[in-house]
Amino acid sequence: MSRPSVLDHATDNCSLVRAVQVLGDRWTLVVLREVFIGVRRFDDIRRHTGIPRQVLTTRLATLVDAGLLHRAPYREPGARERHEYRLTEKGLDLQPALVALTRWGDRHLADPEGPPLEFRHRDCGASVDVAPVCSAGHVLTDPRETSIEPGPGARLLPTAGG
Amino acid sequence: MSRPSVLDHATDNCSLVRAVQVLGDRWTLVVLREVFIGVRRFDDIRRHTGIPRQVLTTRLATLVDAGLLHRAPYREPGARERHEYRLTEKGLDLQPALVALTRWGDRHLADPEGPPLEFRHRDCGASVDVAPVCSAGHVLTDPRETSIEPGPGARLLPTAGG
Repeated sequence: MSRPSVLDHATDNCSLVRAVQVLGDRWTLVVLREVFIGVRRFDDIRRHTGIPRQVLTTRLATLVDAGLLHRAPYREPGARERHEYRLTEKGLDLQPALVALTRWGDRHLADPEGPPLEFRHRDCGASVDVAPVCSAGHVLTDPRETSIEPGPGARLLPTAGG
Repeated sequence: MSRPSVLDHATDNCSLVRAVQVLGDRWTLVVLREVFIGVRRFDDIRRHTGIPRQVLTTRLATLVDAGLLHRAPYREPGARERHEYRLTEKGLDLQPALVALTRWGDRHLADPEGPPLEFRHRDCGASVDVAPVCSAGHVLTDPRETSIEPGPGARLLPTAGG
């Protein structure tokens, strides 16, 4: 029996598709971006993005339900207590993926003036991109240095080898 | 005049949103994943993913039009010439973003058995994840080490400071 090929493996447990399903539609991503860049309050997000009020309400609820954002109370002097939205650890853990997507967009889709945002290393000020890094500490500069192999959750399709 | 805040900047040129718009819907992403894992032929992609024939046709055309895939001829013995789909450099350049999203899904959304695919450094065999890396060569282990600042394409909103 030959080694199963990629075609023999099921695809319905793909982590990439699951991740993108959580990110959902364009508005969900916009709301998440706002919190990442420091816009955390309902009215600020609404004004900054032009997202309709009802859509913003549902997308914030979706992101809280998915465990990417949590609500934190704040109170301005003389005003009633309100809530702002902050990243959970699970949300913050998306940062490399969002930076990677943004940098790809910067390279291939930006206006002639250049990208609207820049990522910088706080310590040294150098610009930040994202790279595959292996657990032995090597930074991989070419996508072809990474191999893709079946993992512990790989499942053979019922028809494989049949 | 105070320094413009993030709220004073336009968001309609966001590279993140543009990138995700190119990736499009779930099926587009599935097709792109297939080519990344080495499934390059129409019938193979269709059988492996269960994507309907007409949907696959349109998604492949979208990815070719967007410059992420190109068609390359091949001919099996005795058969007529056919085409398979390969990543362009622009498509291959998405690899860190797709690995980052997948690894996030692996950590937060995988089945109890673990992820279906693993990324490994071909040279040393160690597992691969994605990390922000600055142009001075520092690997950033905490998202908070990256600052986000206005870039050359940043535009003030018409109302800013008004």
